[in-house]
Amino acid sequence: MQDTARPTAHLVLGGARSGKSRHAEALVRAMPGPWIYVATAEARDDEMAERIARHRQERGPQWHTVEAPRALAEAIETAPEGAPVLVDCLTLWLTNVMLADEDVEAACRQLVETVASRRRPLVLVANEVGFGIVPDNALARRFRDHAGLLNQRLAAVVDEVILMVAGLPLTVKGPTQ
Amino acid sequence: MQDTARPTAHLVLGGARSGKSRHAEALVRAMPGPWIYVATAEARDDEMAERIARHRQERGPQWHTVEAPRALAEAIETAPEGAPVLVDCLTLWLTNVMLADEDVEAACRQLVETVASRRRPLVLVANEVGFGIVPDNALARRFRDHAGLLNQRLAAVVDEVILMVAGLPLTVKGPTQ
Amino acid sequence: MQDTARPTAHLVLGGARSGKSRHAEALVRAMPGPWIYVATAEARDDEMAERIARHRQERGPQWHTVEAPRALAEAIETAPEGAPVLVDCLTLWLTNVMLADEDVEAACRQLVETVASRRRPLVLVANEVGFGIVPDNALARRFRDHAGLLNQRLAAVVDEVILMVAGLPLTVKGPTQ
Repeated sequence: MQDTARPTAHLVLGGARSGKSRHAEALVRAMPGPWIYVATAEARDDEMAERIARHRQERGPQWHTVEAPRALAEAIETAPEGAPVLVDCLTLWLTNVMLADEDVEAACRQLVETVASRRRPLVLVANEVGFGIVPDNALARRFRDHAGLLNQRLAAVVDEVILMVAGLPLTVKGPTQ
Repeated sequence: MQDTARPTAHLVLGGARSGKSRHAEALVRAMPGPWIYVATAEARDDEMAERIARHRQERGPQWHTVEAPRALAEAIETAPEGAPVLVDCLTLWLTNVMLADEDVEAACRQLVETVASRRRPLVLVANEVGFGIVPDNALARRFRDHAGLLNQRLAAVVDEVILMVAGLPLTVKGPTQ
Repeated sequence: MQDTARPTAHLVLGGARSGKSRHAEALVRAMPGPWIYVATAEARDDEMAERIARHRQERGPQWHTVEAPRALAEAIETAPEGAPVLVDCLTLWLTNVMLADEDVEAACRQLVETVASRRRPLVLVANEVGFGIVPDNALARRFRDHAGLLNQRLAAVVDEVILMVAGLPLTVKGPTQ
Protein backbone atom coordinates (compact mmCIF):
# COMPACT_ATOMS: atom_id res chain seq x y z
CA MET A 1 0.00 0.00 0.00
CA GLN A 2 1.18 3.45 -0.98
CA ASP A 3 0.73 5.10 2.41
CA THR A 4 2.93 2.66 4.28
CA ALA A 5 6.00 3.40 2.16
CA ARG A 6 8.77 5.29 3.93
CA PRO A 7 8.76 8.96 2.89
CA THR A 8 11.76 9.98 0.79
CA ALA A 9 14.73 11.83 2.20
CA HIS A 10 17.33 13.84 0.31
CA LEU A 11 20.72 15.08 1.45
CA VAL A 12 21.96 18.10 -0.49
CA LEU A 13 25.68 18.64 0.01
CA GLY A 14 27.83 21.39 -1.40
CA GLY A 15 30.44 24.01 -0.78
CA ALA A 16 29.89 27.66 0.02
CA ARG A 17 27.62 29.40 -2.52
CA SER A 18 27.07 26.25 -4.51
CA GLY A 19 23.31 26.61 -4.80
CA LYS A 20 22.46 24.07 -2.06
CA SER A 21 19.55 25.99 -0.55
CA ARG A 22 17.98 26.82 -3.90
CA HIS A 23 18.14 23.21 -5.06
CA ALA A 24 16.81 21.92 -1.74
CA GLU A 25 13.90 24.36 -1.85
CA ALA A 26 13.06 23.24 -5.38
CA LEU A 27 12.97 19.62 -4.18
CA VAL A 28 10.50 20.54 -1.43
CA ARG A 29 8.37 22.76 -3.68
CA ALA A 30 7.90 19.79 -6.01
CA MET A 31 5.96 18.07 -3.19
CA PRO A 32 2.46 19.01 -2.02
CA GLY A 33 2.49 21.67 0.74
CA PRO A 34 2.33 23.04 3.32
CA TRP A 35 6.09 23.16 3.65
CA ILE A 36 8.09 23.43 6.85
CA TYR A 37 11.36 25.33 6.83
CA VAL A 38 13.57 24.42 9.79
CA ALA A 39 16.11 27.20 10.18
CA THR A 40 19.19 26.34 12.22
CA ALA A 41 20.91 29.71 11.85
CA GLU A 42 21.31 31.96 14.84
CA ALA A 43 21.71 35.64 14.10
CA ARG A 44 24.92 36.11 16.04
CA ASP A 45 26.03 39.15 14.03
CA ASP A 46 24.58 41.69 11.59
CA GLU A 47 25.96 39.92 8.52
CA MET A 48 24.08 36.76 9.46
CA ALA A 49 20.90 38.53 10.62
CA GLU A 50 20.68 40.23 7.25
CA ARG A 51 21.20 36.97 5.38
CA ILE A 52 18.51 35.17 7.44
CA ALA A 53 15.97 37.94 6.85
CA ARG A 54 16.70 38.04 3.13
CA HIS A 55 16.34 34.28 2.77
CA ARG A 56 12.99 34.25 4.62
CA GLN A 57 11.69 37.03 2.40
CA GLU A 58 12.84 35.22 -0.73
CA ARG A 59 11.09 31.98 0.30
CA GLY A 60 7.77 33.73 0.49
CA PRO A 61 4.71 33.24 2.69
CA GLN A 62 3.88 29.66 1.67
CA TRP A 63 6.51 28.35 4.08
CA HIS A 64 6.05 27.76 7.80
CA THR A 65 9.37 28.59 9.48
CA VAL A 66 10.54 26.83 12.64
CA GLU A 67 13.72 27.99 14.35
CA ALA A 68 15.78 25.13 15.70
CA PRO A 69 19.35 26.19 16.31
CA ARG A 70 19.92 23.11 18.50
CA ALA A 71 16.76 21.03 19.13
CA LEU A 72 16.69 19.80 15.55
CA ALA A 73 15.47 16.23 15.99
CA GLU A 74 12.54 17.53 18.05
CA ALA A 75 11.66 20.12 15.42
CA ILE A 76 11.56 17.42 12.74
CA GLU A 77 9.45 15.10 14.85
CA THR A 78 6.90 17.66 16.02
CA ALA A 79 6.24 19.17 12.57
CA PRO A 80 2.66 18.67 11.29
CA GLU A 81 2.02 15.08 10.18
CA GLY A 82 3.14 14.40 6.62
CA ALA A 83 4.34 17.91 5.83
CA PRO A 84 7.66 17.97 3.95
CA VAL A 85 10.47 19.45 6.01
CA LEU A 86 13.50 21.35 4.73
CA VAL A 87 16.42 21.63 7.17
CA ASP A 88 18.85 24.40 6.24
CA CYS A 89 21.43 23.65 7.32
CA LEU A 90 23.03 20.83 9.30
CA THR A 91 26.43 22.49 9.34
CA LEU A 92 25.16 25.49 11.26
CA TRP A 93 23.27 23.16 13.60
CA LEU A 94 26.48 21.23 14.30
CA THR A 95 28.30 24.49 14.95
CA ASN A 96 25.61 25.52 17.43
CA VAL A 97 25.72 22.16 19.22
CA MET A 98 29.50 22.30 19.54
CA LEU A 99 29.55 25.92 20.71
CA ALA A 100 26.93 25.07 23.37
CA ASP A 101 29.21 22.29 24.67
CA GLU A 102 26.51 19.69 24.16
CA ASP A 103 27.25 15.98 23.72
CA VAL A 104 27.90 16.08 19.99
CA GLU A 105 27.87 12.33 19.49
CA ALA A 106 24.53 11.95 21.30
CA ALA A 107 23.01 14.84 19.34
CA CYS A 108 24.20 13.40 16.02
CA ARG A 109 22.95 9.91 16.91
CA GLN A 110 19.51 11.29 17.78
CA LEU A 111 19.37 13.20 14.50
CA VAL A 112 20.43 10.20 12.42
CA GLU A 113 17.79 8.04 14.12
CA THR A 114 15.13 10.67 13.51
CA VAL A 115 16.04 10.82 9.83
CA ALA A 116 16.20 7.03 9.51
CA SER A 117 12.74 6.58 11.07
CA ARG A 118 11.16 9.59 9.34
CA ARG A 119 7.40 9.89 8.96
CA ARG A 120 7.48 12.77 6.47
CA PRO A 121 9.58 13.73 3.43
CA LEU A 122 12.85 15.37 4.39
CA VAL A 123 15.33 17.49 2.51
CA LEU A 124 18.54 18.14 4.43
CA VAL A 125 21.15 20.72 3.46
CA ALA A 126 24.75 20.34 4.63
CA ASN A 127 28.11 21.79 3.75
CA GLU A 128 30.93 19.66 2.46
CA VAL A 129 33.87 21.14 4.39
CA GLY A 130 36.57 18.47 4.19
CA PHE A 131 38.22 19.12 0.83
CA GLY A 132 40.77 21.67 2.01
CA ILE A 133 44.09 21.75 3.82
CA VAL A 134 43.99 20.52 7.46
CA PRO A 135 42.95 23.54 9.53
CA ASP A 136 45.47 25.02 11.95
CA ASN A 137 43.30 25.05 15.02
CA ALA A 138 42.04 22.00 16.90
CA LEU A 139 38.41 23.16 17.13
CA ALA A 140 38.16 23.51 13.36
CA ARG A 141 39.67 20.04 12.96
CA ARG A 142 37.14 18.56 15.41
CA PHE A 143 34.31 20.36 13.63
CA ARG A 144 35.47 19.05 10.28
CA ASP A 145 35.63 15.51 11.64
CA HIS A 146 32.14 15.70 13.15
CA ALA A 147 30.70 17.26 9.99
CA GLY A 148 32.22 14.59 7.77
CA LEU A 149 31.05 11.73 9.97
CA LEU A 150 27.53 13.18 10.25
CA ASN A 151 27.31 13.54 6.47
CA GLN A 152 28.39 9.90 6.06
CA ARG A 153 25.83 8.61 8.56
CA LEU A 154 23.00 10.62 7.05
CA ALA A 155 24.01 9.66 3.51
CA ALA A 156 23.62 6.02 4.54
CA VAL A 157 19.98 6.42 5.62
CA VAL A 158 18.58 8.80 2.97
CA ASP A 159 17.36 7.91 -0.52
CA GLU A 160 19.24 10.51 -2.50
CA VAL A 161 22.56 12.31 -2.00
CA ILE A 162 23.36 15.26 -4.24
CA LEU A 163 26.63 17.16 -4.44
CA MET A 164 26.09 20.68 -5.73
CA VAL A 165 28.80 22.02 -8.04
CA ALA A 166 28.39 25.58 -9.32
CA GLY A 167 24.63 25.39 -8.85
CA LEU A 168 24.31 22.05 -10.65
CA PRO A 169 23.34 18.79 -8.94
CA LEU A 170 25.70 15.83 -9.21
CA THR A 171 24.00 12.62 -8.08
CA VAL A 172 26.12 10.65 -5.63
CA LYS A 173 23.37 8.30 -4.48
CA GLY A 174 19.95 7.91 -5.94
CA PRO A 175 17.58 6.29 -8.39
CA THR A 176 19.64 7.35 -11.41
CA GLN A 177 22.98 6.27 -9.94
CA MET B 1 22.10 27.24 -40.86
CA GLN B 2 25.33 26.21 -39.21
CA ASP B 3 26.82 29.70 -38.82
CA THR B 4 23.90 31.05 -36.84
CA ALA B 5 24.27 28.48 -34.04
CA ARG B 6 25.61 29.87 -30.77
CA PRO B 7 29.28 28.91 -30.33
CA THR B 8 29.90 26.45 -27.50
CA ALA B 9 31.18 27.48 -24.11
CA HIS B 10 32.84 25.29 -21.49
CA LEU B 11 33.47 25.98 -17.80
CA VAL B 12 36.34 23.95 -16.37
CA LEU B 13 36.26 23.93 -12.56
CA GLY B 14 38.71 22.31 -10.21
CA GLY B 15 40.85 22.61 -7.14
CA ALA B 16 44.49 23.58 -6.97
CA ARG B 17 46.69 21.46 -9.23
CA SER B 18 43.76 19.47 -10.55
CA GLY B 19 44.74 19.72 -14.22
CA LYS B 20 42.23 22.48 -15.10
CA SER B 21 44.51 24.43 -17.42
CA ARG B 22 45.75 21.36 -19.28
CA HIS B 23 42.21 20.10 -19.85
CA ALA B 24 40.99 23.54 -20.93
CA GLU B 25 43.86 23.91 -23.39
CA ALA B 26 43.06 20.50 -24.87
CA LEU B 27 39.45 21.60 -25.39
CA VAL B 28 40.60 24.70 -27.28
CA ARG B 29 43.26 22.83 -29.32
CA ALA B 30 40.52 20.52 -30.56
CA MET B 31 39.00 23.55 -32.35
CA PRO B 32 40.42 25.21 -35.48
CA GLY B 33 42.91 27.99 -34.62
CA PRO B 34 44.14 30.62 -34.21
CA TRP B 35 43.65 30.43 -30.47
CA ILE B 36 43.45 33.33 -28.07
CA TYR B 37 44.80 32.89 -24.55
CA VAL B 38 43.41 35.47 -22.15
CA ALA B 39 45.73 35.58 -19.15
CA THR B 40 44.29 37.13 -16.01
CA ALA B 41 47.36 36.61 -13.82
CA GLU B 42 49.36 39.58 -12.65
CA ALA B 43 52.96 38.89 -11.72
CA ARG B 44 52.81 40.38 -8.25
CA ASP B 45 55.71 38.29 -6.94
CA ASP B 46 58.57 36.16 -8.28
CA GLU B 47 56.76 32.87 -7.65
CA MET B 48 53.91 33.99 -9.87
CA ALA B 49 56.10 35.62 -12.53
CA GLU B 50 57.97 32.36 -12.91
CA ARG B 51 54.76 30.36 -13.21
CA ILE B 52 53.32 32.72 -15.84
CA ALA B 53 56.49 32.59 -17.96
CA ARG B 54 56.67 28.80 -17.72
CA HIS B 55 53.02 28.39 -18.73
CA ARG B 56 53.43 30.68 -21.75
CA GLN B 57 56.51 28.75 -22.86
CA GLU B 58 54.67 25.44 -22.45
CA ARG B 59 51.71 26.61 -24.55
CA GLY B 60 53.97 27.31 -27.50
CA PRO B 61 53.88 29.93 -30.26
CA GLN B 62 50.54 28.95 -31.82
CA TRP B 63 48.71 30.93 -29.16
CA HIS B 64 48.02 34.64 -29.20
CA THR B 65 48.22 35.85 -25.61
CA VAL B 66 46.16 38.78 -24.32
CA GLU B 67 46.70 40.05 -20.80
CA ALA B 68 43.48 41.01 -19.06
CA PRO B 69 43.92 41.17 -15.31
CA ARG B 70 40.69 43.17 -14.98
CA ALA B 71 39.12 44.18 -18.34
CA LEU B 72 38.09 40.62 -19.09
CA ALA B 73 34.74 41.13 -20.81
CA GLU B 74 36.39 43.63 -23.17
CA ALA B 75 39.22 41.20 -23.96
CA ILE B 76 36.71 38.49 -24.85
CA GLU B 77 34.65 40.83 -27.01
CA THR B 78 37.52 42.40 -28.93
CA ALA B 79 39.28 39.12 -29.79
CA PRO B 80 39.43 38.36 -33.56
CA GLU B 81 36.03 37.26 -34.90
CA GLY B 82 35.36 33.56 -34.43
CA ALA B 83 38.66 32.68 -32.76
CA PRO B 84 38.27 30.36 -29.76
CA VAL B 85 39.20 32.05 -26.49
CA LEU B 86 40.63 30.39 -23.40
CA VAL B 87 40.34 32.40 -20.17
CA ASP B 88 42.73 31.22 -17.45
CA CYS B 89 41.52 31.91 -14.91
CA LEU B 90 38.40 33.56 -13.55
CA THR B 91 39.49 33.17 -9.94
CA LEU B 92 42.55 35.34 -10.45
CA TRP B 93 40.46 37.85 -12.35
CA LEU B 94 38.00 38.04 -9.45
CA THR B 95 40.90 38.51 -7.04
CA ASN B 96 42.23 41.38 -9.17
CA VAL B 97 38.80 43.03 -9.38
CA MET B 98 38.33 42.81 -5.62
CA LEU B 99 41.83 44.07 -4.81
CA ALA B 100 41.29 47.04 -7.15
CA ASP B 101 38.12 47.94 -5.20
CA GLU B 102 36.00 47.77 -8.35
CA ASP B 103 32.26 47.13 -8.28
CA VAL B 104 32.43 43.33 -8.13
CA GLU B 105 28.76 42.77 -8.85
CA ALA B 106 28.84 45.00 -11.93
CA ALA B 107 32.01 43.35 -13.22
CA CYS B 108 30.57 39.86 -12.73
CA ARG B 109 27.30 40.83 -14.40
CA GLN B 110 29.14 42.22 -17.43
CA LEU B 111 31.22 39.04 -17.68
CA VAL B 112 28.19 36.76 -17.43
CA GLU B 113 26.39 38.76 -20.12
CA THR B 114 29.44 38.59 -22.38
CA VAL B 115 29.62 34.83 -21.97
CA ALA B 116 25.88 34.39 -22.47
CA SER B 117 25.90 36.39 -25.71
CA ARG B 118 29.20 34.99 -27.02
CA ARG B 119 30.12 35.17 -30.69
CA ARG B 120 33.07 32.76 -30.47
CA PRO B 121 33.81 29.48 -28.66
CA LEU B 122 34.87 30.00 -25.05
CA VAL B 123 36.66 27.84 -22.53
CA LEU B 124 36.69 29.31 -19.03
CA VAL B 125 38.87 28.04 -16.19
CA ALA B 126 37.87 28.69 -12.58
CA ASN B 127 38.81 27.38 -9.17
CA GLU B 128 36.32 25.66 -6.95
CA VAL B 129 37.21 27.19 -3.57
CA GLY B 130 34.18 26.54 -1.39
CA PHE B 131 34.70 23.00 -0.12
CA GLY B 132 36.76 23.88 2.95
CA ILE B 133 36.20 25.20 6.43
CA VAL B 134 34.82 28.78 6.62
CA PRO B 135 37.88 31.06 6.39
CA ASP B 136 38.82 33.14 9.43
CA ASN B 137 39.04 36.48 7.71
CA ALA B 138 36.17 38.44 6.23
CA LEU B 139 37.88 39.22 2.92
CA ALA B 140 38.45 35.51 2.20
CA ARG B 141 34.78 34.83 3.05
CA ARG B 142 33.63 37.58 0.67
CA PHE B 143 35.95 36.25 -2.02
CA ARG B 144 34.61 32.74 -1.56
CA ASP B 145 31.04 33.98 -1.81
CA HIS B 146 31.70 35.98 -4.98
CA ALA B 147 33.62 33.09 -6.56
CA GLY B 148 30.86 30.60 -5.81
CA LEU B 149 28.12 32.89 -7.12
CA LEU B 150 30.09 33.69 -10.28
CA ASN B 151 30.66 29.98 -10.95
CA GLN B 152 26.92 29.35 -10.55
CA ARG B 153 25.94 32.13 -12.93
CA LEU B 154 28.44 31.10 -15.57
CA ALA B 155 27.50 27.42 -15.21
CA ALA B 156 23.93 28.40 -16.05
CA VAL B 157 24.85 29.98 -19.40
CA VAL B 158 27.56 27.62 -20.74
CA ASP B 159 27.02 24.30 -22.54
CA GLU B 160 29.39 22.14 -20.54
CA VAL B 161 30.61 22.22 -16.93
CA ILE B 162 33.50 19.98 -15.97
CA LEU B 163 34.87 19.36 -12.47
CA MET B 164 38.48 18.26 -12.60
CA VAL B 165 39.48 15.64 -10.03
CA ALA B 166 43.12 14.51 -10.02
CA GLY B 167 43.53 15.49 -13.67
CA LEU B 168 40.37 13.67 -14.77
CA PRO B 169 37.22 15.40 -16.03
CA LEU B 170 33.95 14.74 -14.25
CA THR B 171 31.00 16.01 -16.28
CA VAL B 172 28.59 18.10 -14.20
CA LYS B 173 26.66 19.57 -17.13
CA GLY B 174 26.88 18.58 -20.73
CA PRO B 175 25.77 16.42 -23.61
CA THR B 176 26.62 13.18 -21.78
CA GLN B 177 24.95 14.18 -18.51
CA MET C 1 47.20 -15.66 -20.16
CA GLN C 2 45.59 -14.58 -16.94
CA ASP C 3 48.77 -14.36 -14.84
CA THR C 4 50.54 -11.99 -17.18
CA ALA C 5 47.84 -9.31 -16.90
CA ARG C 6 48.86 -6.22 -14.93
CA PRO C 7 47.32 -6.31 -11.44
CA THR C 8 44.65 -3.67 -10.86
CA ALA C 9 45.28 -0.47 -8.98
CA HIS C 10 42.73 1.83 -7.37
CA LEU C 11 43.13 5.40 -6.14
CA VAL C 12 40.60 6.37 -3.47
CA LEU C 13 40.41 10.15 -3.04
CA GLY C 14 38.32 12.08 -0.60
CA GLY C 15 38.12 14.82 1.95
CA ALA C 16 38.49 14.51 5.69
CA ARG C 17 36.14 11.91 7.17
CA SER C 18 34.71 10.96 3.82
CA GLY C 19 34.98 7.19 4.31
CA LYS C 20 38.15 6.77 2.20
CA SER C 21 39.82 4.18 4.44
CA ARG C 22 36.69 2.10 4.88
CA HIS C 23 36.03 1.98 1.15
CA ALA C 24 39.68 1.17 0.37
CA GLU C 25 39.69 -1.66 2.92
CA ALA C 26 36.55 -3.09 1.37
CA LEU C 27 38.24 -3.07 -2.05
CA VAL C 28 41.19 -5.02 -0.66
CA ARG C 29 39.04 -7.45 1.33
CA ALA C 30 37.24 -8.37 -1.89
CA MET C 31 40.55 -9.85 -3.12
CA PRO C 32 42.12 -13.09 -1.86
CA GLY C 33 44.44 -12.54 1.16
CA PRO C 34 46.82 -12.22 2.85
CA TRP C 35 46.51 -8.44 2.83
CA ILE C 36 49.29 -5.97 3.43
CA TYR C 37 48.46 -2.69 5.16
CA VAL C 38 51.10 -0.05 4.56
CA ALA C 39 50.69 2.59 7.24
CA THR C 40 52.29 5.94 6.52
CA ALA C 41 51.19 7.64 9.74
CA GLU C 42 53.75 8.59 12.34
CA ALA C 43 52.45 8.95 15.87
CA ARG C 44 53.77 12.45 16.45
CA ASP C 45 51.19 13.28 19.13
CA ASP C 46 48.70 11.51 21.37
CA GLU C 47 45.72 12.32 19.15
CA MET C 48 47.39 10.54 16.24
CA ALA C 49 48.77 7.63 18.29
CA GLU C 50 45.28 6.92 19.53
CA ARG C 51 43.83 7.03 16.02
CA ILE C 52 46.53 4.68 14.65
CA ALA C 53 45.97 2.12 17.43
CA ARG C 54 42.20 2.25 17.00
CA HIS C 55 42.44 1.75 13.24
CA ARG C 56 44.77 -1.25 13.61
CA GLN C 57 42.42 -2.84 16.12
CA GLU C 58 39.44 -2.25 13.84
CA ARG C 59 41.18 -3.87 10.87
CA GLY C 60 41.66 -7.11 12.78
CA PRO C 61 44.37 -9.76 12.75
CA GLN C 62 44.01 -10.83 9.09
CA TRP C 63 46.12 -7.87 8.01
CA HIS C 64 49.91 -7.71 7.96
CA THR C 65 50.89 -4.15 8.84
CA VAL C 66 54.04 -2.50 7.47
CA GLU C 67 55.02 0.95 8.69
CA ALA C 68 56.41 3.14 5.95
CA PRO C 69 56.30 6.79 6.91
CA ARG C 70 58.78 7.63 4.14
CA ALA C 71 60.19 4.56 2.32
CA LEU C 72 56.88 3.87 0.62
CA ALA C 73 58.01 2.64 -2.80
CA GLU C 74 60.33 0.14 -1.09
CA ALA C 75 57.52 -1.10 1.16
CA ILE C 76 55.28 -1.70 -1.86
CA GLU C 77 58.03 -3.49 -3.79
CA THR C 78 59.23 -5.75 -0.97
CA ALA C 79 55.75 -6.94 0.10
CA PRO C 80 55.15 -10.71 -0.41
CA GLU C 81 54.69 -11.57 -4.08
CA GLY C 82 51.12 -11.11 -5.29
CA ALA C 83 49.65 -9.95 -1.99
CA PRO C 84 47.27 -6.99 -2.33
CA VAL C 85 48.62 -3.84 -0.72
CA LEU C 86 46.60 -1.03 0.84
CA VAL C 87 48.48 2.26 1.32
CA ASP C 88 46.79 4.58 3.82
CA CYS C 89 47.53 7.29 3.11
CA LEU C 90 49.61 9.12 0.50
CA THR C 91 48.88 12.53 1.99
CA LEU C 92 50.54 11.66 5.28
CA TRP C 93 53.45 10.12 3.38
CA LEU C 94 53.89 13.34 1.41
CA THR C 95 53.77 15.34 4.64
CA ASN C 96 56.49 13.12 6.12
CA VAL C 97 58.68 13.43 3.03
CA MET C 98 58.36 17.23 3.03
CA LEU C 99 59.00 17.56 6.77
CA ALA C 100 62.13 15.40 6.42
CA ASP C 101 63.44 17.78 3.73
CA GLU C 102 63.76 14.99 1.21
CA ASP C 103 63.71 15.56 -2.55
CA VAL C 104 59.93 15.57 -2.98
CA GLU C 105 59.99 15.37 -6.77
CA ALA C 106 62.34 12.36 -6.73
CA ALA C 107 60.27 10.61 -4.07
CA CYS C 108 57.03 11.19 -6.00
CA ARG C 109 58.60 10.04 -9.27
CA GLN C 110 59.81 6.82 -7.63
CA LEU C 111 56.36 6.18 -6.17
CA VAL C 112 54.57 6.81 -9.47
CA GLU C 113 56.98 4.44 -11.26
CA THR C 114 56.43 1.76 -8.61
CA VAL C 115 52.68 2.05 -9.01
CA ALA C 116 52.86 2.08 -12.81
CA SER C 117 55.00 -1.09 -12.88
CA ARG C 118 53.14 -2.86 -10.07
CA ARG C 119 53.35 -6.63 -9.64
CA ARG C 120 50.48 -6.88 -7.13
CA PRO C 121 47.04 -5.29 -6.70
CA LEU C 122 47.22 -1.86 -5.09
CA VAL C 123 44.69 0.33 -3.35
CA LEU C 124 45.96 3.82 -2.61
CA VAL C 125 44.23 6.29 -0.30
CA ALA C 126 44.84 10.03 -0.69
CA ASN C 127 43.24 13.23 0.47
CA GLU C 128 41.82 15.75 -1.94
CA VAL C 129 43.03 19.01 -0.36
CA GLY C 130 42.78 21.56 -3.16
CA PHE C 131 39.14 22.65 -3.07
CA GLY C 132 39.51 25.42 -0.50
CA ILE C 133 40.75 28.99 -0.34
CA VAL C 134 44.48 29.46 -1.08
CA PRO C 135 46.25 28.86 2.26
CA ASP C 136 48.00 31.80 3.94
CA ASN C 137 51.35 30.15 4.47
CA ALA C 138 53.82 29.15 1.78
CA LEU C 139 54.47 25.64 3.14
CA ALA C 140 50.78 24.77 2.99
CA ARG C 141 50.63 26.09 -0.60
CA ARG C 142 53.65 23.98 -1.59
CA PHE C 143 52.10 20.95 0.09
CA ARG C 144 48.82 21.51 -1.72
CA ASP C 145 50.63 21.80 -5.03
CA HIS C 146 52.64 18.61 -4.49
CA ALA C 147 49.56 16.71 -3.30
CA GLY C 148 47.52 17.75 -6.31
CA LEU C 149 50.27 16.91 -8.80
CA LEU C 150 50.90 13.52 -7.16
CA ASN C 151 47.20 12.69 -7.30
CA GLN C 152 47.13 13.60 -11.01
CA ARG C 153 50.16 11.46 -11.83
CA LEU C 154 48.86 8.46 -9.91
CA ALA C 155 45.38 8.84 -11.39
CA ALA C 156 46.95 8.55 -14.84
CA VAL C 157 48.53 5.13 -14.12
CA VAL C 158 45.84 3.37 -12.05
CA ASP C 159 42.74 1.59 -13.35
CA GLU C 160 40.15 3.18 -11.13
CA VAL C 161 39.84 6.57 -9.44
CA ILE C 162 37.13 7.07 -6.87
CA LEU C 163 36.12 10.31 -5.15
CA MET C 164 34.46 9.66 -1.82
CA VAL C 165 31.58 11.98 -0.93
CA ALA C 166 29.89 11.44 2.45
CA GLY C 167 30.97 7.81 2.50
CA LEU C 168 29.74 7.13 -1.03
CA PRO C 169 32.01 6.36 -3.99
CA LEU C 170 31.80 8.56 -7.07
CA THR C 171 33.64 7.00 -10.02
CA VAL C 172 35.97 9.46 -11.73
CA LYS C 173 37.87 6.88 -13.77
CA GLY C 174 37.05 3.23 -14.19
CA PRO C 175 35.24 0.49 -16.06
CA THR C 176 31.82 2.08 -15.55
CA GLN C 177 32.93 5.59 -16.55
